[in-house]
Amino acid sequence: MVKVRVEVDSLGNISLPDDVYYGIQTQRAIDNFDVSGKAMDEFSIFIASIAGIKKAAALANKDIGRLSEKQCRAICKAADEVIAGKMGRQFPVDIFQGGGGTSTNMNVNEVIANRATELLTGQKGYDPIHPNTHVNMGQSTNDVIPAAMKMATYKELERVETSLGYALTILQEKEAAFVDVIKLGRTCLQDALPMTLGQMFSGYRASVERQIETIRKARELMLELPLPATAIGTCFGTFPGFEPALYKHLGDVTGVPFQRETNLWDGLQNADVWIQVSACLKSVASVFNKLSSDLRLMSSGPRAGFNEINLPAVQPGSSIMPGKINPVMPEMMMQVAFKVFGNDLSVSLAADRGELDLNVWESLILNCVSESITLLEKGIVLLTDRCLRGITANREKCAEDAGSSLALSTVLATLFDYPVASGIAKMACKENTTIKEIVIREGLLSQERAELLLNPANLIDINVFDHVVKGMGADNG
Amino acid sequence: MVKVRVEVDSLGNISLPDDVYYGIQTQRAIDNFDVSGKAMDEFSIFIASIAGIKKAAALANKDIGRLSEKQCRAICKAADEVIAGKMGRQFPVDIFQGGGGTSTNMNVNEVIANRATELLTGQKGYDPIHPNTHVNMGQSTNDVIPAAMKMATYKELERVETSLGYALTILQEKEAAFVDVIKLGRTCLQDALPMTLGQMFSGYRASVERQIETIRKARELMLELPLPATAIGTCFGTFPGFEPALYKHLGDVTGVPFQRETNLWDGLQNADVWIQVSACLKSVASVFNKLSSDLRLMSSGPRAGFNEINLPAVQPGSSIMPGKINPVMPEMMMQVAFKVFGNDLSVSLAADRGELDLNVWESLILNCVSESITLLEKGIVLLTDRCLRGITANREKCAEDAGSSLALSTVLATLFDYPVASGIAKMACKENTTIKEIVIREGLLSQERAELLLNPANLIDINVFDHVVKGMGADNG
Amino acid sequence: MVKVRVEVDSLGNISLPDDVYYGIQTQRAIDNFDVSGKAMDEFSIFIASIAGIKKAAALANKDIGRLSEKQCRAICKAADEVIAGKMGRQFPVDIFQGGGGTSTNMNVNEVIANRATELLTGQKGYDPIHPNTHVNMGQSTNDVIPAAMKMATYKELERVETSLGYALTILQEKEAAFVDVIKLGRTCLQDALPMTLGQMFSGYRASVERQIETIRKARELMLELPLPATAIGTCFGTFPGFEPALYKHLGDVTGVPFQRETNLWDGLQNADVWIQVSACLKSVASVFNKLSSDLRLMSSGPRAGFNEINLPAVQPGSSIMPGKINPVMPEMMMQVAFKVFGNDLSVSLAADRGELDLNVWESLILNCVSESITLLEKGIVLLTDRCLRGITANREKCAEDAGSSLALSTVLATLFDYPVASGIAKMACKENTTIKEIVIREGLLSQERAELLLNPANLIDINVFDHVVKGMGADNG
Amino acid sequence: MVKVRVEVDSLGNISLPDDVYYGIQTQRAIDNFDVSGKAMDEFSIFIASIAGIKKAAALANKDIGRLSEKQCRAICKAADEVIAGKMGRQFPVDIFQGGGGTSTNMNVNEVIANRATELLTGQKGYDPIHPNTHVNMGQSTNDVIPAAMKMATYKELERVETSLGYALTILQEKEAAFVDVIKLGRTCLQDALPMTLGQMFSGYRASVERQIETIRKARELMLELPLPATAIGTCFGTFPGFEPALYKHLGDVTGVPFQRETNLWDGLQNADVWIQVSACLKSVASVFNKLSSDLRLMSSGPRAGFNEINLPAVQPGSSIMPGKINPVMPEMMMQVAFKVFGNDLSVSLAADRGELDLNVWESLILNCVSESITLLEKGIVLLTDRCLRGITANREKCAEDAGSSLALSTVLATLFDYPVASGIAKMACKENTTIKEIVIREGLLSQERAELLLNPANLIDINVFDHVVKGMGADNG
Repeated sequence: MVKVRVEVDSLGNISLPDDVYYGIQTQRAIDNFDVSGKAMDEFSIFIASIAGIKKAAALANKDIGRLSEKQCRAICKAADEVIAGKMGRQFPVDIFQGGGGTSTNMNVNEVIANRATELLTGQKGYDPIHPNTHVNMGQSTNDVIPAAMKMATYKELERVETSLGYALTILQEKEAAFVDVIKLGRTCLQDALPMTLGQMFSGYRASVERQIETIRKARELMLELPLPATAIGTCFGTFPGFEPALYKHLGDVTGVPFQRETNLWDGLQNADVWIQVSACLKSVASVFNKLSSDLRLMSSGPRAGFNEINLPAVQPGSSIMPGKINPVMPEMMMQVAFKVFGNDLSVSLAADRGELDLNVWESLILNCVSESITLLEKGIVLLTDRCLRGITANREKCAEDAGSSLALSTVLATLFDYPVASGIAKMACKENTTIKEIVIREGLLSQERAELLLNPANLIDINVFDHVVKGMGADNG
Repeated sequence: MVKVRVEVDSLGNISLPDDVYYGIQTQRAIDNFDVSGKAMDEFSIFIASIAGIKKAAALANKDIGRLSEKQCRAICKAADEVIAGKMGRQFPVDIFQGGGGTSTNMNVNEVIANRATELLTGQKGYDPIHPNTHVNMGQSTNDVIPAAMKMATYKELERVETSLGYALTILQEKEAAFVDVIKLGRTCLQDALPMTLGQMFSGYRASVERQIETIRKARELMLELPLPATAIGTCFGTFPGFEPALYKHLGDVTGVPFQRETNLWDGLQNADVWIQVSACLKSVASVFNKLSSDLRLMSSGPRAGFNEINLPAVQPGSSIMPGKINPVMPEMMMQVAFKVFGNDLSVSLAADRGELDLNVWESLILNCVSESITLLEKGIVLLTDRCLRGITANREKCAEDAGSSLALSTVLATLFDYPVASGIAKMACKENTTIKEIVIREGLLSQERAELLLNPANLIDINVFDHVVKGMGADNG
Repeated sequence: MVKVRVEVDSLGNISLPDDVYYGIQTQRAIDNFDVSGKAMDEFSIFIASIAGIKKAAALANKDIGRLSEKQCRAICKAADEVIAGKMGRQFPVDIFQGGGGTSTNMNVNEVIANRATELLTGQKGYDPIHPNTHVNMGQSTNDVIPAAMKMATYKELERVETSLGYALTILQEKEAAFVDVIKLGRTCLQDALPMTLGQMFSGYRASVERQIETIRKARELMLELPLPATAIGTCFGTFPGFEPALYKHLGDVTGVPFQRETNLWDGLQNADVWIQVSACLKSVASVFNKLSSDLRLMSSGPRAGFNEINLPAVQPGSSIMPGKINPVMPEMMMQVAFKVFGNDLSVSLAADRGELDLNVWESLILNCVSESITLLEKGIVLLTDRCLRGITANREKCAEDAGSSLALSTVLATLFDYPVASGIAKMACKENTTIKEIVIREGLLSQERAELLLNPANLIDINVFDHVVKGMGADNG
Repeated sequence: MVKVRVEVDSLGNISLPDDVYYGIQTQRAIDNFDVSGKAMDEFSIFIASIAGIKKAAALANKDIGRLSEKQCRAICKAADEVIAGKMGRQFPVDIFQGGGGTSTNMNVNEVIANRATELLTGQKGYDPIHPNTHVNMGQSTNDVIPAAMKMATYKELERVETSLGYALTILQEKEAAFVDVIKLGRTCLQDALPMTLGQMFSGYRASVERQIETIRKARELMLELPLPATAIGTCFGTFPGFEPALYKHLGDVTGVPFQRETNLWDGLQNADVWIQVSACLKSVASVFNKLSSDLRLMSSGPRAGFNEINLPAVQPGSSIMPGKINPVMPEMMMQVAFKVFGNDLSVSLAADRGELDLNVWESLILNCVSESITLLEKGIVLLTDRCLRGITANREKCAEDAGSSLALSTVLATLFDYPVASGIAKMACKENTTIKEIVIREGLLSQERAELLLNPANLIDINVFDHVVKGMGADNG
């Protein structure tokens, strides 16, 4: 027979199996919010962040004489167990929960109270450590939840930063490897001027560097916390001295220099910071969406497409067409991007819908931001590992395309003028031949000069081109 | 020691533990797409739908002489086991997957082939039943996946319909219960004319009826399938007679009258039907978002708010403020709505991004639509159970508000004219008293007439009001 | 010197130049809402719809004895002038306006009152026709605005339907013209099976047919009006007999069989119908976005791209690269689509945010829906005229691509089995040659049979292929 | 008779009325893109920015010897006229335009070329100043358009900053004016702890300060330009020395220290910077959306709502209900927010959809960002002027609400413990009385202590409360 214990709150009492550390309010929330099947357990860094606040608050309350040494020690020990992940499945409330996260805060309060009481008395219960009176002392759900969200996101974003760093390294390698692969540039999907594949990848590389910077800025936005605003920003329930002590201990507990937000009313009223953070994730998603889309285009074919590059074959591509290989890794990444875009909208709506003295939709924000972080982190690593690393170039096809472009007429527009060049391009188009051929035939340039001036390899660097032009002396023809 | 078997595909071979039924392509996909942690397993109706297609296709291929009786029987039996959910954790590929769902289709092909071969030979393997040659015969990922998505969504939407029906029943009860609760209407959050709470709930009820109709229409959109388009719409790989036989057997297998889409090229090229379906879910979400938002407003207080209705107390509302109760169920529902809105965007982006002969983003659409369906179904049931059912009205507060409104001056605008009524309203406002008091004082109406004509209970039904007016005879004053 | 007149309302009085027909409340709104520079004037069908309601209401109020024959006649004549567009710039209030459209409704009330009074007395004024007492009799902004929005949108959507019809005609022409252009199908941007360009365009054609159906359904949603709900759904301010008379006259005035919504409280509370309508416009936008994107891909090159089709050259494509031509018409269409997607979000937010007895954001919905309609209508016509009409096919390039595809191995998978076909495809890939060549060399098919069975023209219709296969007798090799 | 001139381009020739300065390519674009009715004319700062680039490029080309002194002078003079707005309606191309803005760039090139030629020869034409060869020298649409967009947005965002500064000033005034208005805080729309209205407005004030910072950061993102990438990032068409000269002159022309982007390929490939900028605008919109929504709630009533504050009456609120006043200014602002959210989606889609070496959707981004800027700037000024400035507080109602809250039990939870406080709250709720009354009756606090400890004015500042508590000595009861 399972041992049970009875807990009581203002609405009545409930029997709980005695082997769980959570309590009556948690149980009510489990029943009320059985919606998504996604429990707070899955957000372990967030739970640990709340426990970190509990610990720092206990230490601060002890410092100002509101908690005894013994009470403080028990709370801290219990909180440490939560932080260390030893409380396994004790946080089963669904992530979709009304009430601005009260259920989650109370869940942590109850687990710590039961555990701390157990540590002191040998059995669970709320005497001498009560979840509200002691564990939650000097706090409210309304400041704890948004603070813990920032603390958790600060850490989680580091994972995105790391995965971006990995992608960057590989893109740098590719940039170097492709430095001399001459290819055709394309705008509006139409043949344009030549460039190198290395130049193109330098663009990708630079865009990823920028995203790293973007994520760093997002992390900085997470350093200011609305503690100890308590319920509505007035700090009621805290006492003089609590705030500085709290931040001192929080720094010790987390190793991160978290600071108080300038205006605590604003800190509870507004969640626009999450619009910014989510936009940063959307920006990362978008850059990888574009990169992935480009990889698909450049590897299209292999026979009847651009066929400029080869992506590693990671799985057969068709249940019906033997030999088909699909760009599945970029496609996975693009799906991630579409999802991140959707999450950004959900975050924006939740952030936007706050009212009066609190935004009560923050657990949805946590849910969406956290999902986007995970998808981006893992998606980028997989894309890098299984696709970017193994990309090879089809040098011949690239070179051929570069030489055939009608846009090489730009050389003539630069040396002569635009109308002349336009005429040449028109002829080359009509006769389905190259610019070079027409130019020579029409006597605009000698063969020798045409070979030099219309060589794509001389058009990818203006210093080289200038050198070529100058080497010919004054006589352009 | 675990027994292993080696499978081979065009990229090489892989050792698999022999107790799994999935094969080499599934294993590659598991490794390639470890992104979200959400496996196809969780989409059991979708997997069953694919298996249903496999079974119907086997029967159809047998009918036209492309599969033997024995092959067909083995495939059908294996498919039946999948449909019945007996293949437990055999579909572990992540829902985020490139390649347009090839991995999922091959996963099912492999499980059925291994199981069918086992049924025939006693051990797993692809001889005599090969995943591509036999299980996938007359099919392609490109027609199977979108078809199975529609089949699955057809069924899943029924759950939303059922939960809407439940909410409807309870709203009808409330409409009846509140039929005589006089309250104040509000527009722009400002005091307007009186109405009954029953009238207000009749509006909610009607809006839910409309959503049921909306979901029904969405379900109808799911009845047309792109089978047997195979890879690109030409049906290549199928033979004359296959199509009618396939649909006949599919009807038998599913009990649903699925039909062929008119144009199979369109069927693969375009996914705009999902924009429609997702918009239907967004519409449901929005109606419940608005309802939930209204419940929060009307129950605001209890002391310093509208305080017109009481929501059942389902959990304590604050970790710091004793006695506080929050409208947590409507808040849970609103979070669901924000998420459904985000999913709608993801679906729209994925549906929009198809190119050439296929939309390859459909597994993301499935992911998002399915999540929205689950959230709405469960959310609506919980809201109904734990909130709507128990709503009670504060009749006195409602009546008091109704009588105090300056908008009762509308009666005067109707009986006299707008400028007169406007003047009365202005006086009542300035003197902080009621319209009735001013009207009587100013001699516009006798006390008796004022009591009748400005009684909110007489203003909620134009026939009643007309009767009152007519009963007074020609003399308006 | 400009003649002025002074008008008065409950907040005071204002001098107006006497040559304007609008009045004091309009003037206040002009000053309050000078935000976007986009005035109600630009929404002439909407203004005409409001005036239509005014006329029908006047006739109905006359029928039930609330307005005199003379009053009615004057109001109708003034309303007719508005409907006919004779009131030019008399509706200058910005489309961004708070108050749920009161300003627009009062603007129309004032213009009609001033004009009707002028007709009766020779000068503007509100005696004997008062904007609220008479012109607005039996109405409220709250029912007039959503009703007029539906009436206007019903008409405006017809323009989209017409432009879709035009695109359809041209796509049908292209489908016929391209019926024998053999090309390669592509999925995941990778070479797949052959098809005809006509088949591909039949898919586009079918998708446009579906959009026409979608728009028709959207129009049907516009036929139910919340008249005469007046302020909050109770119809207060109307008298028995008004409603049937109103709808009878509205039918006469508009020629459209508008009907009363079933539940008028719902009619004011909820705006989810606009989520549906906007989703229909998004669906149209998405289908044309995808079509446009495909046109860009298929015409990419001309040298180093797919180069399957040619789009008409409508303008030079570059300021620097002579001879470049861009797919500018599809690109314009894609920008339209992005804007329609954004408008859909704005509409969804506004529809979602209604509260209690009214949705007060409807003028934003009108703004966005109307913009999307205009963009789609004009965009589709321009795209059709300047791009679709003139598309030509590069038959040779298409045929060459079709013959080179490794996916022709699907024929072998169909005739033999998948592993055999896979081996052939691998060889063809490695040796950079065709499936046909390998098949013959390896002795899998005789040259004669290979020519027939691997001829793309025989693979685009399963009956043709079946005929070919059967013509060969039992001996597959 | 209108004098005409004939212009020629690679597609043929066109007659133009000679009084226009734009040329053949502009005319083609006018015809191709007649979609939205919104012409480039309306984006005068953007047009001026392009002209600024033309001028700086001419000066730089002169410096490196590619343009003559005379050519340069003529181009500069013509560009100056464009910058000064003297070229009125010469930019009539629709904002929706394919081709990545080539039409707009050529429009400016043509206007400047015709005008410069006219300055030199007395009549319009392209000799000696050709639009491509000379005006566009060293440039491409592909670098000019994104550069000019950033330059223009840098300036336009200053307007948002200014309007935010205005709102800030007024909010500071209100914060000061309301410093001693005791009111009730609310979370989840339920009665919470007391605070002052000044504290609440300090939160609004702080949120606006943050938005100013946000806009400043957005402006900084606009300082890096992709000039002189020319067509694809290689700078082809420019010559050594051009780049430094260009930036030197651009600084002189604009007075802003614009700099080169680090990687020019990235500069053309990616437009994610606009996702960031748009998110900043969305953040501003959201903060004002929330503020506006709060103002509506707090001013709800006046009889049957929160009725804590009064918004200035700026227009009558109803066509049917005399005396009704609506919060129209906040409602206008909320509509602005919904539109900005929609624009943000359009911007995100356009920024996301770039491909290969260019993002060609940038004119849509310009359109949306520019619209959002205008709406926010004007909306915020109007809201501030006509609403924020005139807000007054209903001190008595606020005080009454504050005293009645059951959440005053928090005082007891702080002094005694949570269960005791919870019991008191329950009694006060059941007996419909105040916490104070119960506390005294139950003997928990003496009347004197209760008056002090439960006085809302003592609960809004923890130092005050601490002082009160300490003043009572050790004896809590």
